[in-house]
Amino acid sequence: MTERKNIAIVGAGLVGSLLSLYLAKRGHKIDLYERRPDQRQFAEDGGRSINLALSDRGWRALRGIGIEEEVRQVAVPMHGRMMHDDKGNLSFLPYGKEGQFIYSVSRAGLTVALVNLAEKKENVKLHFNRQLTHLDVRINELQLRNRDTEEVERIKPDILFGADGAYSAVRSEMHKRELYDYSQSYLEYGYKELTIPPAAGGGWQLDKNALHIWPRGNYMMIALPNIDGSFTCTLFFPHKGPLSFESIKTETQLFAFFQNSFADAILLMPDLAQEYFANPVGSLVTIKCFPWSFEGKAMLIGDAAHAVVPFYGQGMNAGFEDITVLDQMLDNFTGDWRDLFERFERKRKPDADAIADLAVLNFIEMRDKVADPRFLLRKKIEAKINEKYPHTWLPLYSMVTFSDLPYSYALETGRKQDEIMELVMPHIQAPEDFGKQEVQDLLHKLLQEEERLKPYSKVK
Amino acid sequence: MTERKNIAIVGAGLVGSLLSLYLAKRGHKIDLYERRPDQRQFAEDGGRSINLALSDRGWRALRGIGIEEEVRQVAVPMHGRMMHDDKGNLSFLPYGKEGQFIYSVSRAGLTVALVNLAEKKENVKLHFNRQLTHLDVRINELQLRNRDTEEVERIKPDILFGADGAYSAVRSEMHKRELYDYSQSYLEYGYKELTIPPAAGGGWQLDKNALHIWPRGNYMMIALPNIDGSFTCTLFFPHKGPLSFESIKTETQLFAFFQNSFADAILLMPDLAQEYFANPVGSLVTIKCFPWSFEGKAMLIGDAAHAVVPFYGQGMNAGFEDITVLDQMLDNFTGDWRDLFERFERKRKPDADAIADLAVLNFIEMRDKVADPRFLLRKKIEAKINEKYPHTWLPLYSMVTFSDLPYSYALETGRKQDEIMELVMPHIQAPEDFGKQEVQDLLHKLLQEEERLKPYSKVK
Repeated sequence: MTERKNIAIVGAGLVGSLLSLYLAKRGHKIDLYERRPDQRQFAEDGGRSINLALSDRGWRALRGIGIEEEVRQVAVPMHGRMMHDDKGNLSFLPYGKEGQFIYSVSRAGLTVALVNLAEKKENVKLHFNRQLTHLDVRINELQLRNRDTEEVERIKPDILFGADGAYSAVRSEMHKRELYDYSQSYLEYGYKELTIPPAAGGGWQLDKNALHIWPRGNYMMIALPNIDGSFTCTLFFPHKGPLSFESIKTETQLFAFFQNSFADAILLMPDLAQEYFANPVGSLVTIKCFPWSFEGKAMLIGDAAHAVVPFYGQGMNAGFEDITVLDQMLDNFTGDWRDLFERFERKRKPDADAIADLAVLNFIEMRDKVADPRFLLRKKIEAKINEKYPHTWLPLYSMVTFSDLPYSYALETGRKQDEIMELVMPHIQAPEDFGKQEVQDLLHKLLQEEERLKPYSKVK
Repeated sequence: MTERKNIAIVGAGLVGSLLSLYLAKRGHKIDLYERRPDQRQFAEDGGRSINLALSDRGWRALRGIGIEEEVRQVAVPMHGRMMHDDKGNLSFLPYGKEGQFIYSVSRAGLTVALVNLAEKKENVKLHFNRQLTHLDVRINELQLRNRDTEEVERIKPDILFGADGAYSAVRSEMHKRELYDYSQSYLEYGYKELTIPPAAGGGWQLDKNALHIWPRGNYMMIALPNIDGSFTCTLFFPHKGPLSFESIKTETQLFAFFQNSFADAILLMPDLAQEYFANPVGSLVTIKCFPWSFEGKAMLIGDAAHAVVPFYGQGMNAGFEDITVLDQMLDNFTGDWRDLFERFERKRKPDADAIADLAVLNFIEMRDKVADPRFLLRKKIEAKINEKYPHTWLPLYSMVTFSDLPYSYALETGRKQDEIMELVMPHIQAPEDFGKQEVQDLLHKLLQEEERLKPYSKVK
């Protein structure tokens, strides 16, 4: 057992509160500071996504503190994507093999569950309504304004974690020193959350076990099921332009747009106009930075280190995996926090960059390609390749969602698979063409050339 | 003639002062604000490069205000790179064809010349010692602290230009709004400036008409001639590591390092230790951002919009070319500044990104490759290809330095040339192999395939 430290975590969201539980298990004394009020007493503030996709990497981190089953009780499994075309026709694309699901969970519900667990720990202390106003990273001194009393507290923990999200105050303060690589990049799209309420007699108005997508080329809507029978819809739409958040100013324009683009959904959305004009437009940012740590004293984690756009459903999962990776390194910890943090960020940075890039690529796929029959045919062929070569070919989506292979490995392998599919697909017009001898021979040859397409054997 | 505007330019360095001259020519009323004191009365502050490489894009912008010949009087032409190997052997690589030179000019001297010209204009007013402390970009209101009197002035120009360099205060203030793409990326190298003084009897101690390079793989030194007979040397060296700015702490270590790495230079550097321990270590940053403008009211230009590392000698030239491009657009100006600024940034951004990337690539080339005989052989072969196919093959360095082809076109064409050279060089062991029939046939075939390798016909 290494020395017990006084550790401050700024941010008691999903990643901060889960991290407190992992560090508490190792005997450290944790203070967990949160800018907002205790969500268990106040309604959550607006503008943040209401439900989230939880997949294997996230489950693994929850399993580590023994709350996997508890969370699964309130999670809704989604077996695949349900595409709604502009005539209201549905088509279904499974996410993985039989039994491989992602789950829709409530952000607020999961956060509250983690905070409740943290509160029960003797060595974790919660502090709500505390806003970081200053950080002197050289001596690890923080100033936190108590938003109830307006008093300023000064603390000087041994170790500081910044788990305070995409617009991290810890990062901004660390950022003031030189030689800090940083980038923020916005999509030209924003998002707005809308609701499909439960049916009059209770229950879901659309297939509850799917992530619904209305892909429309230049924009799209998605819907994820909630445990109460409702769906939370998210409209991804350009900020500006002829058809955009900026262009829709009246109810007439709104209904005309929805009637034209989402005719089957509008019937299920009685509060559309009220919600549309009341809810804020969120923006979609990718943030990359390096280093994440400072001299073994302070460390960014989760969105604070690597905010991604939501299109791979991996934001929370990547943040939780940070904790899993850190916890594994703590198994063989020498007590040198600087060395630990530097090894952690070197290992984790390429994976954080990869999921950021994958999320942007998946935006394009969801928006444009899932409505394209050639794309759907290709997905079917890839499933067949996976079936025939289960140890050689794991689809990209499965590597990201249903494995713990490094994201960077998934991205690289996905690119190699793209190259192979570019060569194979010209020979294929229908799913049954997969059985043709020329296709089988070509595929066999290409897979032999691509020795590195063996995720499990090579990486694990 | 469009409406005359009150224009504020923040930053009276090279780009800001040249811009004031161009805008004054069009009849606008210009206020030029500079954080530092008037350089004509005070010695310049340390830490900034003393001389700069001026090439065709820069000359073109100076020609536009009629001071080309005046500057050429105090510029030292450099015909090529003079490599110093670790035994003191010299080899020379010309920059271009006969008569194609770049020029070493004094940053302070050129700035003073431009400021003097600006001061003479009736419609340009200079304000030194004015620090931007606040900018409300929505209403274009600036607060400027007078560093002499500590008074704060408030101004509200019609149009604002931020020409205040890589660490632009205008950009930081614009940056506070949402949806602003930004990245800063540091090399792991810093730089330090040192001097080779004139010979005892006057004159230069090295060939004055060359840019001298001591390439050493993991680090390098360069030297540019000054008009007074001295050379300004710049040591590019890792910030940290076994052999780095961090590792050299004593004179003994310094002399041992220079003796080992720059034996021929150390003989010419009597003030080495004094300068080395007195002069600051500069850092090498690439800054990209977008958009550059805000609602037709404010616009970033030069390093404020696109800071690059110095290894292509194009920082000043790119900033000056911004002005040339803007001036061309002003020839057919409708009076709509928003439209002007948006067209300008859309046109110029890909070129700014390209020169940023080219500068980082050239760092690697200067540091590692110019000491490699295969690389030098390749450069000779490329010169022969250029001679034989003058309208089809312009070397990358020439496109950047001796043409006004867009930087983005140069980068793309350079990549195509790389692909061709990868196929050609395996057939070549010596310069005379260029004449072999197989080489000529291969080259002919590759160039025919690459229809786009015709810079002048396609772009101009």
